[in-house]
Amino acid sequence: MEFIKGVKQPETLEICQLLQEGMEGNQVKVNGNVHTIRNMGNVAFIILRKREGLVQCIYEQETSEFDIKEVKEAAAVEICGVLKKSEKAPNGIEIEAKGLKILSEPAETMPLSISKWKMNTSLEAKLNYRPIALRNIRERAKFKIQEGVVRGFRDFLYQQGFTEIHTPKIGAKGAEGGANIFKLDYFHRPAVLEQSPQLYKQMMVGVFDRVFETGPVFRAEKHNTKRHLNEYTSLDLEFGFIRGFEDVMAMETGFLQYTMELLKKEYSRELQILGITLPKVDEIPAVRFDKAKELAAEKYGRKIRNPFDLEPEEEILISQYFKEEYDADFVFVTHYPSKKRPFYAMEDPEDRRFTLSFDLLFRGLEITTGGQRIHDYRMLTEKLAARGMTEEGLEQYLDTFKHGMPPHGGLGIGLERLTMKIIGEDNVRETTLFPRDLSRLEP
Amino acid sequence: MEFIKGVKQPETLEICQLLQEGMEGNQVKVNGNVHTIRNMGNVAFIILRKREGLVQCIYEQETSEFDIKEVKEAAAVEICGVLKKSEKAPNGIEIEAKGLKILSEPAETMPLSISKWKMNTSLEAKLNYRPIALRNIRERAKFKIQEGVVRGFRDFLYQQGFTEIHTPKIGAKGAEGGANIFKLDYFHRPAVLEQSPQLYKQMMVGVFDRVFETGPVFRAEKHNTKRHLNEYTSLDLEFGFIRGFEDVMAMETGFLQYTMELLKKEYSRELQILGITLPKVDEIPAVRFDKAKELAAEKYGRKIRNPFDLEPEEEILISQYFKEEYDADFVFVTHYPSKKRPFYAMEDPEDRRFTLSFDLLFRGLEITTGGQRIHDYRMLTEKLAARGMTEEGLEQYLDTFKHGMPPHGGLGIGLERLTMKIIGEDNVRETTLFPRDLSRLEP
Repeated sequence: MEFIKGVKQPETLEICQLLQEGMEGNQVKVNGNVHTIRNMGNVAFIILRKREGLVQCIYEQETSEFDIKEVKEAAAVEICGVLKKSEKAPNGIEIEAKGLKILSEPAETMPLSISKWKMNTSLEAKLNYRPIALRNIRERAKFKIQEGVVRGFRDFLYQQGFTEIHTPKIGAKGAEGGANIFKLDYFHRPAVLEQSPQLYKQMMVGVFDRVFETGPVFRAEKHNTKRHLNEYTSLDLEFGFIRGFEDVMAMETGFLQYTMELLKKEYSRELQILGITLPKVDEIPAVRFDKAKELAAEKYGRKIRNPFDLEPEEEILISQYFKEEYDADFVFVTHYPSKKRPFYAMEDPEDRRFTLSFDLLFRGLEITTGGQRIHDYRMLTEKLAARGMTEEGLEQYLDTFKHGMPPHGGLGIGLERLTMKIIGEDNVRETTLFPRDLSRLEP
Repeated sequence: MEFIKGVKQPETLEICQLLQEGMEGNQVKVNGNVHTIRNMGNVAFIILRKREGLVQCIYEQETSEFDIKEVKEAAAVEICGVLKKSEKAPNGIEIEAKGLKILSEPAETMPLSISKWKMNTSLEAKLNYRPIALRNIRERAKFKIQEGVVRGFRDFLYQQGFTEIHTPKIGAKGAEGGANIFKLDYFHRPAVLEQSPQLYKQMMVGVFDRVFETGPVFRAEKHNTKRHLNEYTSLDLEFGFIRGFEDVMAMETGFLQYTMELLKKEYSRELQILGITLPKVDEIPAVRFDKAKELAAEKYGRKIRNPFDLEPEEEILISQYFKEEYDADFVFVTHYPSKKRPFYAMEDPEDRRFTLSFDLLFRGLEITTGGQRIHDYRMLTEKLAARGMTEEGLEQYLDTFKHGMPPHGGLGIGLERLTMKIIGEDNVRETTLFPRDLSRLEP
């Protein structure tokens, strides 16, 4: 009987192993994809793309035991040879290639020049050739930064006593109600794709006290802008025993502080590749919604047209104001008007036209909506009635409150938007592996 | 201007803080949900449910400065008093309650008796009152174990150089094709919910070399069994430069080894609550599909009816065989027949009727399907043609192979099934927060 005993160290080495002390002069074996070849006749540079970066291998007609003409760009190969220092090569090392084994060959030449430092390609073309375009070192680095953000979110929340949950994406009713919901047939019953895990995570506060989820959400909005997607990854958290919605803002600030440190520590390679300066997160100003509108209107001479919501241009001006006045990259805008917030938002007892809620703006863009929720059963049912909403489909949600819930609050963060603003991109599709928008459903 | 500076230590203490050295005799403040009250007139025990477990608080008519009659089960409260040792109390501590503040009150009494150690309630009733039933300590512990499994998966794979990805759940075409797909209308275009991130993760192997995803998958199968769900959480990985599909089995074994250690270390409380003995994962036997069928048929006198697939009863008997003969909780069944595997499965060059693929059985249940994939463009298009499948909707997927892909393989693990078998449950709904099946679409 054969037994599988776990992961064995392979013969081939990764870049971090090549860079260890005392490796110089050793016979080494590496594998990778041929990123590019510069062939100068007797000598050629074969640049391998590995998951940690690039490795330069030198072919010399006299010493290498393979034919350089047989090596194609985009092939997967294994190369053995002697490891040398080389100041000009990536990571300061190169391999004098002796043997080369072809593991896999492309059928056609590349449609895009992925080996350029900055790809001179439109977003449209990059998305049409997504799995190819992402082989570019800079393009790929964006999604390592995105990984770091999600990792920071989870690791920070584990430390804070949160439990990770997995809630269903097919449901009988959406969290916020409204028209922007994808509908489907579920074994001859009408069903929807959830816009948010909102109701589920609230129900789970009564169980785990503190919960989070990272997963897809679906919005059938007919927006066609640089900041909207019809499917995106939401970083959601919700927790009990808050003393006010300031606790929710403090938790988000803590997450951002933790994550920027994590990026500095574990993703410095990608920060350098992309030339990123991380934003300041030691403290984040918080300003009331109506005050924020006024400040921006006064300073930049812009008339307030809609007193109940922030227009995209206002988000930009408010961010500009706080950057100029306080050198702040982030700003919490608090106390949004009740009529623009969902039924579960806690109203301000001092003025019920406003809610104990907030948005977080980051360099001109809303990346979070959060706040305190109603935890009292009667207050909740009265609010539903006052809005003319039905309790149908909300039975278990309301039951949860009937049987006791602590004061609680939470938030949702758009992962692609947050990543985009950290990186300094201006279109959310740049930080989405396979965007879903009005025109794009493939691949 | 107000500034938010991050998470502040609250006044109230968590259980791990109460258990620290030198806390005995201190004035402490805690919050929590009233799990149960035992009122004996002059004295009462108020058991608080906190995220880490239960805390016993003692009310005494003479010293407590509140009226016990005003404290209801399921209320959220804050209690202050002196911390004492108490052998019989949970965690060996109790609080002599002096003050009690009610933060939130239930509107009705509980429909289920959640404070019992084992709930004497049908699965049906537990699911109908899911957010209430999960307040039971044992019910809730199941999902902490589930968290540990996902956490183990991610942490192990980060260490192994994998990148986390987020692929779309709405697509134009499903990974495996076939009829068991949920369909929806996407802005007047036909769309589907993805059955698996298979095609996306393969495409990303060419970019990141090693990738994983933890997310929902959707199957419109009309099964009504204890082991099927129509939406579940899939732990998916895919990686390049494998030397054979044994590397994929080795990676899964490594994940299981890592995760069992993590559960022992970080989830010992929940293992104890549920009385779990973790399975052996030091080595996992691997046996060919046809050999496994024979062994089970011989030993247990069962006739082989379907030579191309394993019936559920055969999975149970094969597991039983390896438990009895090798004391193995897991067994890899390898070389599944080609006709039962999807188009992208790599066929065995020695016998093309079989594939270089495997299932992992755990205590009688299939929890993983995996294997090596076809990485050669021509081999892939020929296989599609031989199966009479169209290339429509697979353009970008096929393009990826046209432009070079390393030999690679991967797997998908059903999170709820794995959790269920670790815990020793016999219905996958027990380890699903909000199951979706033929009859259940709510809450």
